Amino acid sequence: MLEALKQEVYEANMQLPKLDLVTFTWGNVSGIDREKGLFVIKPSGVEYDKLTPDDMVVVNLKGEVVEGKLNPSSDTPTHTVLYNAFPDIGGIVHTHSPWAVSFASAQMDIPALNTTAADTFYGDIPVSEALTKEQIETAYEEETGEAIVKTFKDRGIDPEAVPAVLVAQHGPFAWGATPAKAVYNAKVMEVVAEMDYHAMTLTTRDSHVPQYLLDKHYYRKHGKNAYYGQDNPKSADHK
Amino acid sequence: MLEALKQEVYEANMQLPKLDLVTFTWGNVSGIDREKGLFVIKPSGVEYDKLTPDDMVVVNLKGEVVEGKLNPSSDTPTHTVLYNAFPDIGGIVHTHSPWAVSFASAQMDIPALNTTAADTFYGDIPVSEALTKEQIETAYEEETGEAIVKTFKDRGIDPEAVPAVLVAQHGPFAWGATPAKAVYNAKVMEVVAEMDYHAMTLTTRDSHVPQYLLDKHYYRKHGKNAYYGQDNPKSADHK
Amino acid sequence: MLEALKQEVYEANMQLPKLDLVTFTWGNVSGIDREKGLFVIKPSGVEYDKLTPDDMVVVNLKGEVVEGKLNPSSDTPTHTVLYNAFPDIGGIVHTHSPWAVSFASAQMDIPALNTTAADTFYGDIPVSEALTKEQIETAYEEETGEAIVKTFKDRGIDPEAVPAVLVAQHGPFAWGATPAKAVYNAKVMEVVAEMDYHAMTLTTRDSHVPQYLLDKHYYRKHGKNAYYGQDNPKSADHK
Amino acid sequence: MLEALKQEVYEANMQLPKLDLVTFTWGNVSGIDREKGLFVIKPSGVEYDKLTPDDMVVVNLKGEVVEGKLNPSSDTPTHTVLYNAFPDIGGIVHTHSPWAVSFASAQMDIPALNTTAADTFYGDIPVSEALTKEQIETAYEEETGEAIVKTFKDRGIDPEAVPAVLVAQHGPFAWGATPAKAVYNAKVMEVVAEMDYHAMTLTTRDSHVPQYLLDKHYYRKHGKNAYYGQDNPKSADHK
Repeated sequence: MLEALKQEVYEANMQLPKLDLVTFTWGNVSGIDREKGLFVIKPSGVEYDKLTPDDMVVVNLKGEVVEGKLNPSSDTPTHTVLYNAFPDIGGIVHTHSPWAVSFASAQMDIPALNTTAADTFYGDIPVSEALTKEQIETAYEEETGEAIVKTFKDRGIDPEAVPAVLVAQHGPFAWGATPAKAVYNAKVMEVVAEMDYHAMTLTTRDSHVPQYLLDKHYYRKHGKNAYYGQDNPKSADHK
Repeated sequence: MLEALKQEVYEANMQLPKLDLVTFTWGNVSGIDREKGLFVIKPSGVEYDKLTPDDMVVVNLKGEVVEGKLNPSSDTPTHTVLYNAFPDIGGIVHTHSPWAVSFASAQMDIPALNTTAADTFYGDIPVSEALTKEQIETAYEEETGEAIVKTFKDRGIDPEAVPAVLVAQHGPFAWGATPAKAVYNAKVMEVVAEMDYHAMTLTTRDSHVPQYLLDKHYYRKHGKNAYYGQDNPKSADHK
Repeated sequence: MLEALKQEVYEANMQLPKLDLVTFTWGNVSGIDREKGLFVIKPSGVEYDKLTPDDMVVVNLKGEVVEGKLNPSSDTPTHTVLYNAFPDIGGIVHTHSPWAVSFASAQMDIPALNTTAADTFYGDIPVSEALTKEQIETAYEEETGEAIVKTFKDRGIDPEAVPAVLVAQHGPFAWGATPAKAVYNAKVMEVVAEMDYHAMTLTTRDSHVPQYLLDKHYYRKHGKNAYYGQDNPKSADHK
Repeated sequence: MLEALKQEVYEANMQLPKLDLVTFTWGNVSGIDREKGLFVIKPSGVEYDKLTPDDMVVVNLKGEVVEGKLNPSSDTPTHTVLYNAFPDIGGIVHTHSPWAVSFASAQMDIPALNTTAADTFYGDIPVSEALTKEQIETAYEEETGEAIVKTFKDRGIDPEAVPAVLVAQHGPFAWGATPAKAVYNAKVMEVVAEMDYHAMTLTTRDSHVPQYLLDKHYYRKHGKNAYYGQDNPKSADHK
């Protein structure tokens, strides 16, 4: 069942240690088959060097396990909320990567201070509000997803244009059109957080890039006028 | 004598360089056989790539060598005090891992600012008081152990719930149910210290997590209602 | 066509991941044949482990592709401007290396605070002014090159003596007599930025080296009295 | 000639990249045969992966090359001064390791804030005064050595008890009984500088260890009462 997607999700999970995004088992990637309404996710607490494609767990959009001999990631309810709320995303990743967690601990956005950020994120990566006592004590993982969705709604951010978030006091989630794109975005977030930390402790000036630089860099790589790389709509025009 | 435990302690010691917790020979792991009242510890000053299971030294709970051709770690008296004072722990590790030593040098706790901390440590990792001149000049390594025990007693901290400490001006000790768990806890401490440093230099606000978040995350992974992973009491309920 | 130069540029590009200067595909190196007035550059957005010498693209000094089956780096117009403005350079490199990007984000020069800087850079590595809205919206990559050239002209800096720059809000460019030398200079810039960051956050004093130390170190390695290494004009005198 | 010492010096040099103490060719180790009054040193500017024991250069205590087909390190005059001034040392190392250079750039000592420092350095690692214009323009490398010697004399520091120094605006030198010990001391200095930086930016309190802790740790590993490891005078007493 969903063997190709399991392989794809497995490979995306295996990128996490290679990209220095996880310590021990602290991360998980999922990917969705939108037609079938099912997603595939890493099992909970399994070490990366013991993981196989066959260990992946299949879950429906109510968050119920449909197939799998192991328990899915304890963060499965968060993934479920996000797949339901953001209908255009194809993969989700959660890690405890250290630079992103530092910003989440300080409850600060990862600001767009340079073109490295602007190439991937069309604005600051927002931090959610801290969850309340009630949210934490009732349905914690679902409420984590709801806090993410609320953050994007309240602040009017398009989750496709800014495909990542920090959950306050917790850490980063990222997403994308595919599981591999989600992992890519998670790595960019981590690198940008590192660059930002050093810029923000070098100077107290507000170093945000202006809107027109954000527009330029983001749309070099995204949308109908993108020309970066070999396969974007306008790539050939730059030859 | 205690061949299986020697192998286990050897393997836990070999994790230290793999997890980037030691420079040169600056670390040691021990493990105890509670029934026999004997513990096994790394010899003093031996390089990791020359270490064998057979080099491990067997020590009793008075700190006397029972078997072993090499001198035990110079920190053996500290391990002895901890095994006597904390009857439920099965393994102890000491390193000079750099982020933890920085907090020990500044004589500051490693605070619980995020869920990465809360998953393993039920509260701040305390720093002991600095040892006095007399303590240092008489029985230094024993007094180091006593200072740790006093810290947990004075501050009312359960050593099973917060399985790590910073010795002021020195560095970290961690422990756990097994030698491998102790090493795991030492690595989490180091990662949390790194995350905390950057959060604490990004913002001056007190970023401690609230008690209810600490409860939630700690008890997801510990105790009779734990549901993280594949083998906790409530793991199956989350399938 | 230009097979030897393609090989040389390919090898210089492959140094970028080895020297930890790039994440993903975020970097490019070019090299020029001054007699033919043609330069060779990495294609846009191709992963390093899939790159071959044959993928390199040949471009003329108007920035037009002369040979190549792939699109050249999207930064090609910047390289074109620099080769035209700086007639003595033989190779150019652009990366998003994190320490340099942090200084570019803060819009601060990388100052000459020590002999490591002075050995390679005869003074501070300047940051350009931020590009205007109009510059960004018209011919962005050309204007990036023009901003670099203007920085060196306005501040009276010799691009051979200080073979690197930060583009404000973006990141580093470096150059040299050959593609390999350009990459060497890019790595020195990154290491110096790291050293500077820590020095500048340790002390608020102005730690610039004096002019005579700059002279001494720079001219140990450059010019007709250089004596460092085995092949400089005065190397033999120091035997 | 001095084949065993060449091999020893070669191996100590090859430790520098393994211990992450050098970028490119920025480091050199030497070792002395006190009976013959000759020392062996790395050639100038040769890459580590091309270095062989046979490339080592033999120099006398006037700084004259006695044997060798390559030019010796440009820092050879500094080594010569130190071997003459400090008659009990057997090996010297110079690097541009980044944490030590940051302290040298800020012209700050690397203070003794913890037992990691005290195990190897009996007090702060001093930074020299900056060289004057005249010193730099006349016999730069000799004057670098003289500045080191003056620092130890003026401040009453025993170069055997504190076997390392920072040359202001330049970087670290370390020494020891053998070339290998010198490299060991250089690595400890780098690790201690990293630990200190983070402690010093976490707190503004003076975190120096007291004299009695310095005594305890230093003399656990040095002198007639040392008991750390397997081979110190009192090691067996701790079994």
